[in-house]
Amino acid sequence: FVSGWFAKPMPVQYEKPSPSYLHEFLDEMHAENIREHLRKFTRLPHLAGTLQNLRLAEQIQKEWLAFGLDSAELVWYDVLLSYPNGTKPNYISIVDQHGEEFFKSLLAEPVPEGYEDLTDIVPPYSAFSAQGKPEGDLVYVNYGRTEDFFKLDREMGINCTGKIVIARYGKIFRGNKVKNAMLAGAKGIVLYSDPADYSAVGVEPYPAGWNLPGGGAQRGNVLNLNGAGDPLTPGYPAKEYTYRFSPEEGLGLPKIPVHPIGYNDAARLLNKVRMTIHTYNQVTRIYNVIGKIRGAQEPDRYVILGGHRDAWVFGGIDPISGAAVVHEIAQASGKLMQRGWRPRRTLIFASWDAEEFGLLGSTEWAEDNAKILQDRAVAYINADSAIEGMYTLRVDCTPSLQTLVYDVTKQVGSPEVGEEGMSLYDSWHKRDNWTDNRDAPRINKLGSGSDFEAYFIRLGIASARARYTKNRKDTYSNYPVYHSVYETYEIVEHFYDPTFQRLLAVARVRGGLIFHLADAPILPLNCLEYAHALIQYAHGILKIAQKHPEAMQRYTVSFDALFSAVNNFTNAANDFHQRLKKVDTTDLLAVRMVNDQLMYLERAFIDPLGLPDRPFYRHIIFAPSSHNKYAGESFPGIYDALFDIESAVDPARAWDEVKRQISIAAFTVNAASNTLNPVA
Amino acid sequence: FVSGWFAKPMPVQYEKPSPSYLHEFLDEMHAENIREHLRKFTRLPHLAGTLQNLRLAEQIQKEWLAFGLDSAELVWYDVLLSYPNGTKPNYISIVDQHGEEFFKSLLAEPVPEGYEDLTDIVPPYSAFSAQGKPEGDLVYVNYGRTEDFFKLDREMGINCTGKIVIARYGKIFRGNKVKNAMLAGAKGIVLYSDPADYSAVGVEPYPAGWNLPGGGAQRGNVLNLNGAGDPLTPGYPAKEYTYRFSPEEGLGLPKIPVHPIGYNDAARLLNKVRMTIHTYNQVTRIYNVIGKIRGAQEPDRYVILGGHRDAWVFGGIDPISGAAVVHEIAQASGKLMQRGWRPRRTLIFASWDAEEFGLLGSTEWAEDNAKILQDRAVAYINADSAIEGMYTLRVDCTPSLQTLVYDVTKQVGSPEVGEEGMSLYDSWHKRDNWTDNRDAPRINKLGSGSDFEAYFIRLGIASARARYTKNRKDTYSNYPVYHSVYETYEIVEHFYDPTFQRLLAVARVRGGLIFHLADAPILPLNCLEYAHALIQYAHGILKIAQKHPEAMQRYTVSFDALFSAVNNFTNAANDFHQRLKKVDTTDLLAVRMVNDQLMYLERAFIDPLGLPDRPFYRHIIFAPSSHNKYAGESFPGIYDALFDIESAVDPARAWDEVKRQISIAAFTVNAASNTLNPVA
Repeated sequence: FVSGWFAKPMPVQYEKPSPSYLHEFLDEMHAENIREHLRKFTRLPHLAGTLQNLRLAEQIQKEWLAFGLDSAELVWYDVLLSYPNGTKPNYISIVDQHGEEFFKSLLAEPVPEGYEDLTDIVPPYSAFSAQGKPEGDLVYVNYGRTEDFFKLDREMGINCTGKIVIARYGKIFRGNKVKNAMLAGAKGIVLYSDPADYSAVGVEPYPAGWNLPGGGAQRGNVLNLNGAGDPLTPGYPAKEYTYRFSPEEGLGLPKIPVHPIGYNDAARLLNKVRMTIHTYNQVTRIYNVIGKIRGAQEPDRYVILGGHRDAWVFGGIDPISGAAVVHEIAQASGKLMQRGWRPRRTLIFASWDAEEFGLLGSTEWAEDNAKILQDRAVAYINADSAIEGMYTLRVDCTPSLQTLVYDVTKQVGSPEVGEEGMSLYDSWHKRDNWTDNRDAPRINKLGSGSDFEAYFIRLGIASARARYTKNRKDTYSNYPVYHSVYETYEIVEHFYDPTFQRLLAVARVRGGLIFHLADAPILPLNCLEYAHALIQYAHGILKIAQKHPEAMQRYTVSFDALFSAVNNFTNAANDFHQRLKKVDTTDLLAVRMVNDQLMYLERAFIDPLGLPDRPFYRHIIFAPSSHNKYAGESFPGIYDALFDIESAVDPARAWDEVKRQISIAAFTVNAASNTLNPVA
Repeated sequence: FVSGWFAKPMPVQYEKPSPSYLHEFLDEMHAENIREHLRKFTRLPHLAGTLQNLRLAEQIQKEWLAFGLDSAELVWYDVLLSYPNGTKPNYISIVDQHGEEFFKSLLAEPVPEGYEDLTDIVPPYSAFSAQGKPEGDLVYVNYGRTEDFFKLDREMGINCTGKIVIARYGKIFRGNKVKNAMLAGAKGIVLYSDPADYSAVGVEPYPAGWNLPGGGAQRGNVLNLNGAGDPLTPGYPAKEYTYRFSPEEGLGLPKIPVHPIGYNDAARLLNKVRMTIHTYNQVTRIYNVIGKIRGAQEPDRYVILGGHRDAWVFGGIDPISGAAVVHEIAQASGKLMQRGWRPRRTLIFASWDAEEFGLLGSTEWAEDNAKILQDRAVAYINADSAIEGMYTLRVDCTPSLQTLVYDVTKQVGSPEVGEEGMSLYDSWHKRDNWTDNRDAPRINKLGSGSDFEAYFIRLGIASARARYTKNRKDTYSNYPVYHSVYETYEIVEHFYDPTFQRLLAVARVRGGLIFHLADAPILPLNCLEYAHALIQYAHGILKIAQKHPEAMQRYTVSFDALFSAVNNFTNAANDFHQRLKKVDTTDLLAVRMVNDQLMYLERAFIDPLGLPDRPFYRHIIFAPSSHNKYAGESFPGIYDALFDIESAVDPARAWDEVKRQISIAAFTVNAASNTLNPVA
């Protein structure tokens, strides 16, 4: 019954929005403007919960209104944040036999030139670390991944119980490292940036180049929220009336001290260390800016462009390279409005707060507006950092948005020198093709680690993100100065995008996506691409299970139901697209009806019961990996049930859970296919 | 801020469907036809899971197609059912000192005249009873309510641990009695029908009258499913591929033997008894019949008329008086279609199976189609027993349907002799007014115990039920022969509705509701009535809390947020209705937009996280009472948190839970009010 392989996605001809307005829209975005937004927004630190970040919110609000948006509001929440103690610094020390500290890690990073007079640069810290002064033997745990701890425990016989562990940054989300350390029984964890992971070959440290200096350290939160938003109000917006758990009951908070250091300090550490951590948690008001352009024909359909504004320090890359792009898209929208354009559907612009503290601003707003978003949201386009490398485009999106991404990138020019007249699509395509037989630029699954999470994984709204990235052959993690004080305006101007053409290209991709989604009479969502992806994911998860052929036979584990459901989905998607071609586009209700089917398709993958022990991760096809929040896992329920199943204490029970998860996935895919069938 | 009292619901003028077709529709329903349907469908027993009930499904399917419905399908599920052992009977006995049984309860009810030759009448039993032969002292626990067990324990010092308890039927759902007995430590529970509860004064036992004979006993399931549907597949449809819990893990199954007896036998029982129970559980295929009439303008909007078909024996009242009415409505719809009528929206007719075993057929179909129903269902009208008394109409519905219920009953004539020319509304009004100041017929909250549960409480679809009922001053429970073999066609024909005018009136009410809901351009849902109800419920729950003024002060418990949210809701509902008056009804998208707001309003009260420990009861405004499944509780989360709070072991924690529930209710009401605000 697996006929799906033969149903390769076909190019779908959507009725396109008026091309003249699209090009006017893309042309209204200018590299020089983006440069100015970036410059203006990165002069001062704007950490979430600080007055400076509120001021920046007010400035953005004011400017969005000036651009011509119909409304721009500040929307606040009172969420749990975490700050270093202003008078008692955090550090790692080596202690002699008399208890004297004869080495202490740096209390702050050397401040880059031009910023020396600023007093409010938060020193490197791990947000939400527990307080404490644990002392003990130091165990090196490599990247602190699940497999690293398995190796220590199972192959090397090294026990981390009661130890302080040191992990290098990279490969996985730091919160997963902390969780793994806790599970291994460690009493503290030190994180450091190894040159192997945070220095590109042949590049100088900042300011001479864009590598991380030896005194630089990566800030970041170390929560394991699993999509909950504010740790004290999981599931509900953190408003003045909201019941809050007590701080000890807070969701996803680490129970041990955590601290990040640079590699100069890391190289000094000996067998035995002391951690001194005074970081404290505090309920703090944060502010989102929500701007709207009311849709002309379907004001009750929402296309959202959202990215965060808060930064650990200046946020030159993360997030302001993205926020500057959003600002330019808002400005271009306003200019078009002055010429009489108004989108068919409502556009929502969001400047999120406290992303760095666990996606808090975006998640609280999603919780606050869940009912409306569930009914009305067409798509969510994320706008975090617009650049993290100088090589080509990177897109992560839900399968149904792939066709639109290709369409849009064909309408945008390559920003690379020597590629004048070439489309971004072609430039991207030649640098990064799919690894399977498909001849098109590679598109990735959405994981997490940015503000789309609540919209995609919890609410089931079709989502995408796009940014400029490095060559995937480069082995360093993120970009070297990630979350350090060296993320300045200058690093973008001098190294990443001197002409601002790359940021402009990203602006046009993000802007082109929301333009089409908001303006096309038929929604540019392609369920054939979803069918194609489901077939691949089903084969992928089957392959993992088939590593255990005896167990599959012994416990009668079959994937037939899942493949049958995927087959149904493929057939339904094909039939739907056949019918779509025949829709009378002058029949407003008929158009609305097929659009509703397209819009609600992503919603159909949501299981209200959530994934096991992760009630806010409710998407049955995609979830952040349980071992690395940044990575997307397909069929996560089945994947997690299969993970390390060879070590299960009760294999019969473990395989039973695999069968239960297959059943849930099969039901969900089949139910989603039913939403594409004729409505009556 | 409690200005809500001044915002009394105003009569709303909806654009009505074409009145000529409405009257043709109502006129097409005939008492004689209903009589024939009832006669035909009650000749044989049709217990869920039996061949006879499949045959009846096929007959209904065939006739619906003959009436002219666009489609009629059999939809099956494999669910856990429960049957007495065919060779080892269940009974209660008294044992002498040698272990000899010198008294045994009846193994079957005396069969009524005309039905003696039938071999497949299931004897009285408690479906899903545990098996066993417990022996022990008998403790009388009155109705087996929470308060009855409190009284035994706290006032009388009687311990039920290790005892067999005997409870009389009535007041609450029998499953709650069984749960209470288990919580009290009983090792078995006998249920019996006391004449005080199952005999009306001055009425003869059947067949001379409609009272329960002394040998009659009430069948019924004794589950505590809390909305889960099939005990082995909670949350998912029970299809061939579905993962099933093992029978021991089944949800809501009683752990002790349960058995029902008549009052002749109950009067014979002594202090010490033995229960002999061989009832077994078995996964069994059940069949719903789903008929559809495709909507002409909005086929993707569904109005559902559903009622069950399975009966414990003949189902003369429960459910066939209702199924006969559905059949007549389907026939009338078909006749109108032949004259060129087609509803604006899609009509779905459902004949549910296995309602008696825990609302299984309707809940499995709701699970199977949850995603589609969530997107598209406008309303669910329930059609269980159409008559349970001879006095007047009884309606339970969501507040937003009250106005429509009044409108419809004004268009239907009274069925009572001597009230020719009087409307059903007036006949009902003079018999049963609201107890507060409102001058209109009383309408009740929806509880549970019938097939609307999954649609209303789990999915948040506006729902209503209507039937003819007894005078609420009559003190007997249900109707005396409820769930006995004496529920025959003849009891309806001879006593309850000799002219079938009452069933006809109910048919016209149910039919009128679906007609308006399916055909009116603007959905006949009134959010002002919801606002009015919320104000009353908020005051009601505050009053309960205020029984503990010291605790409220000590633990700083405030209902301000809830009242503020209700106030917001009232304002939003008023504004919405002002805007509704101005909607250009020729603007198809504008009409669709307000209709979507009206349709999704009920959905907005659903919390995906569910009520505490009841994940499938997700409606924050209404849930079945935790102490009586039949009764509806408003603000159930707060109510349950306050219940017996004076006995809480940890009062601070208990009042904290009250605060958490108030916060959830306030958020939900406020979020629902936001769905009524302008969309952009």
